[in-house]
Amino acid sequence: MTSPNKTHPFPTAESCEEAFYQAIEDADLDAMMAVWSERKTMSCIHPGAPMLTELDDIKESWRQIFTMADTIRFKRYAHSISAEGSLSIHHLREDVLLLDEVVNTVIVTNIFKQEEDGWKLILHHASAEPDLEEFEAEIEEVNAAFSSLSPPSPTLH
Amino acid sequence: MTSPNKTHPFPTAESCEEAFYQAIEDADLDAMMAVWSERKTMSCIHPGAPMLTELDDIKESWRQIFTMADTIRFKRYAHSISAEGSLSIHHLREDVLLLDEVVNTVIVTNIFKQEEDGWKLILHHASAEPDLEEFEAEIEEVNAAFSSLSPPSPTLH
Repeated sequence: MTSPNKTHPFPTAESCEEAFYQAIEDADLDAMMAVWSERKTMSCIHPGAPMLTELDDIKESWRQIFTMADTIRFKRYAHSISAEGSLSIHHLREDVLLLDEVVNTVIVTNIFKQEEDGWKLILHHASAEPDLEEFEAEIEEVNAAFSSLSPPSPTLH
Repeated sequence: MTSPNKTHPFPTAESCEEAFYQAIEDADLDAMMAVWSERKTMSCIHPGAPMLTELDDIKESWRQIFTMADTIRFKRYAHSISAEGSLSIHHLREDVLLLDEVVNTVIVTNIFKQEEDGWKLILHHASAEPDLEEFEAEIEEVNAAFSSLSPPSPTLH
């Protein structure tokens, strides 16, 4: 199958998003880069990683990911879509699977823009979501540590 | 000063965003909640925390943050704004300061929606941004570990 590119643009934000995840599952760097806008204000944030804003850096990051793991699969759970005119915001939770096992849960904000040559991805903001129970236990620990460290400060409020 | 509320709506996405950060700096829970939409598909993700989608949970999270630290200040660096009609997407990097010291750098996607009673925040997606050099050193370690663990797999590509 020919990867979508400038002569095969994405007619909808949804088709662009499908191609994005398919490119990851196929570890297909050309297909991945066909999804991205080339405008100057794009941004790609992998979980726990710095913000990437240059197309070359974004490409290199996916190249590294595809080299390290070529069996990534996703289960995606849409939380919300907000769309107006040439903007479409997709907010979702993903289970990331390696060898059919969930290794990470990720919260993602994907933003698509309709450009002259079809819909493109302009922002991918992904961050790892902790297990809720573990997170709450951690917060309790921090609260306890904070309480024991801070002297009473009746003048603060 | 009276906090903006339903009778003092935010006329622009920018004024809503300013109020959001002012509410954090003032540790003002009422001002914070005046910023948020009450629609069903909102989402708030604090760095390293689970996705919160219920107004009560979002309020409780800010209450905890304001209890733990009431001297939060920000230096904000806008990366991009994409706006169309009633949607406005603000993507930025923040230095978080406690007692005038940068304790964290955070990447944020804030999404505002113009509703009947003015602009409201519908999505706040924040994630910690690592130091670039430390991150690259970590990636090299992971790559090295991966190379040493994986047997050659000539059939994979």
